[in-house]
Amino acid sequence: MISKKMKTFVSKSSTIRAMFEEGRRLAQIYGEENVFDFSLGNPNLEPPDSVKESVKYILDNESPNFVHGYMNNSGYEDVRKAIAEFINKKHGVNLSEENIVMTVGAAGGLNVILKSILNPDDEVITFAPYFGEYRFYCDNFGGVLKEVPPDFNTFEPNLKRFEETINNKTKAVIINSPNNPTGVIYSDSTLKSIAKILTRKSEEYGTSIYLISDEPYREIAYDGVEVPYILNYYKNSFVGYSYSKSLSLPGERIGYIAVDSEMDDFEEVMAALKVATRILGFVNAPSLFQRVVARNLDSEVDVNVYKKNRDLLYNHLVKLGFECVKPQGAFYLFPKAFIEDDKKFCEIAKEYNLLLVPGSSFGCPGYVRIAYCVSYEKIEKSLPAFTKLAERFK
Amino acid sequence: MISKKMKTFVSKSSTIRAMFEEGRRLAQIYGEENVFDFSLGNPNLEPPDSVKESVKYILDNESPNFVHGYMNNSGYEDVRKAIAEFINKKHGVNLSEENIVMTVGAAGGLNVILKSILNPDDEVITFAPYFGEYRFYCDNFGGVLKEVPPDFNTFEPNLKRFEETINNKTKAVIINSPNNPTGVIYSDSTLKSIAKILTRKSEEYGTSIYLISDEPYREIAYDGVEVPYILNYYKNSFVGYSYSKSLSLPGERIGYIAVDSEMDDFEEVMAALKVATRILGFVNAPSLFQRVVARNLDSEVDVNVYKKNRDLLYNHLVKLGFECVKPQGAFYLFPKAFIEDDKKFCEIAKEYNLLLVPGSSFGCPGYVRIAYCVSYEKIEKSLPAFTKLAERFK
Repeated sequence: MISKKMKTFVSKSSTIRAMFEEGRRLAQIYGEENVFDFSLGNPNLEPPDSVKESVKYILDNESPNFVHGYMNNSGYEDVRKAIAEFINKKHGVNLSEENIVMTVGAAGGLNVILKSILNPDDEVITFAPYFGEYRFYCDNFGGVLKEVPPDFNTFEPNLKRFEETINNKTKAVIINSPNNPTGVIYSDSTLKSIAKILTRKSEEYGTSIYLISDEPYREIAYDGVEVPYILNYYKNSFVGYSYSKSLSLPGERIGYIAVDSEMDDFEEVMAALKVATRILGFVNAPSLFQRVVARNLDSEVDVNVYKKNRDLLYNHLVKLGFECVKPQGAFYLFPKAFIEDDKKFCEIAKEYNLLLVPGSSFGCPGYVRIAYCVSYEKIEKSLPAFTKLAERFK
Repeated sequence: MISKKMKTFVSKSSTIRAMFEEGRRLAQIYGEENVFDFSLGNPNLEPPDSVKESVKYILDNESPNFVHGYMNNSGYEDVRKAIAEFINKKHGVNLSEENIVMTVGAAGGLNVILKSILNPDDEVITFAPYFGEYRFYCDNFGGVLKEVPPDFNTFEPNLKRFEETINNKTKAVIINSPNNPTGVIYSDSTLKSIAKILTRKSEEYGTSIYLISDEPYREIAYDGVEVPYILNYYKNSFVGYSYSKSLSLPGERIGYIAVDSEMDDFEEVMAALKVATRILGFVNAPSLFQRVVARNLDSEVDVNVYKKNRDLLYNHLVKLGFECVKPQGAFYLFPKAFIEDDKKFCEIAKEYNLLLVPGSSFGCPGYVRIAYCVSYEKIEKSLPAFTKLAERFK
């Protein structure tokens, strides 16, 4: 007697999560150390020590009713102010506490944004491969996700197909850079092109097409590559940020939405974000961790650890003949499977205790996602399993 | 360019929250100590000391990646197990970790439940007066809230009108006891009657009508009155619990859903709750505070403090000629306004720096809600203001 829609969702329930449970089952049989679970983006790096210190400092020095109580639905004013100032310094924009809404992670933030803007049957465009949950987030509010097919050579956005996909129902575009699952970072020129197309199309249809930047991986970038800030490119942008990866706090569900004051109908939009936060049942982002992140804006996990993981695994896979774009950020590899059927390929990988996620979950069949946010030793130990897997297809 | 629906919501945005902001404005003019803000259910009692101790213990003794990382969408297994065992002991039921889903407070829990069960145009019944947010929570998933009108003498559910309101579109009933805003606790016999009616009507329409018990105030009960446990009354029940009030942690957004294994389609329902938690963007209840509440199941704030507040304010209001049902639980009084127009009455109260919430926000015009989860001294100091307010209408 659950709803019809949920019946379908339950039956197709997330492959990634199913894999997570499968990993735990295999670990019980073969021992944790012999299972190579590359299925979930659960960071293995510990949060910086300053996180623990801040929690203790706050508990010892601030009033418990303030720290654990309700505040404005958009979050503590001082926290939003600190974040705004940090962003201003880092990205040369001009935000204040009025431009920030604290959220229950980036997933919560995206839902709040989409609730605020979507009318039934509105379309939201994203670039394949993409985080599969976007489809649900849009559907939650009657929206429909439209995929722009991948450019398999670079996994950069296919801008020609993008422009063709926009129509008078297009309400928003979701981008995600550094990208899950490819690790690609959109360049300055890509963002300029996207902004130009959106400006032109907004004018053409007499509407505001929003750009939503899903940014849980912003700080996870390698080799000195810059991650451009979309508020500098397009005024009708929402940044959906999360501290899940930068501070290794995914379970705490803490992030924010940032909006520039130049956005069309700015005040109405901000009011909508607050109301959406309330009525979707978030009410507010978890209070203690709002205060914790405000004290850790300059901290982040050591990205070099992920970089070493990337290099070790990437080089090995390429040597084995995998086709793979070298990731510039995030902590995923997205190689082409040796057979067309990516689900079957993942099933076979499981025989070697390798847990990978089929690219189909990201709107990109024929590929697999490998989350390398695990220990270096785990990756080292997994290399022979990848070798055996590759040999199977030679 | 926000959505049409949100445009309406924003313009009518929560009176309670507007009042909260108004209180802060008045406090800046007249000084915090001269403004009597009875508008928000933000507990003034500090969390038990054991909460702070548990946070520190967990940070010092458990792995940071475990404490702050992703877990199953339904929450940590050991936390769910501890909660299930606590409920079993307290209420004589037979739950395990499989019967519990951790949630982002009760508001998050209600949204997860409604997402799981509602088809478009399904009806959800509740008893006026009721927490106004229920209307939004139902609407989020295409459901329609139907009110059963109040019994003004007792604010007990009007069971005759309840039965008449049920039809073949009725999917669920939300109850809230101890009640916000009346403080009424539903008795054993009331719950038996509700269960009987729902069983009969479910059979009549060949469906499962769910009973959803919104329980943020379960532990806030006075004078030894028992709050019966609905899982002992009706198998198709959801308990939506929150630690916001029992541990004074409303900002932390931590609660759970409990379901009995006897519920129709139990496994499918639990799977739906997990998927809903994920796709609504909650992903999981905040991780550290899951672990904290599991260590504080036996703790609660000192309810006697609220009881003293109730007695002081209730006795004073009755002496002034206010008609008011004496609350058995929660921390609200819900007296009849001296004039029919409750919004106007609240406007007038504001002239005495008294911030009250119109009963219209709870589907019960002509009444006002007074949240007495403030300090005893604040209530003492507010009594002359109530006296002046009453004199105005003599």
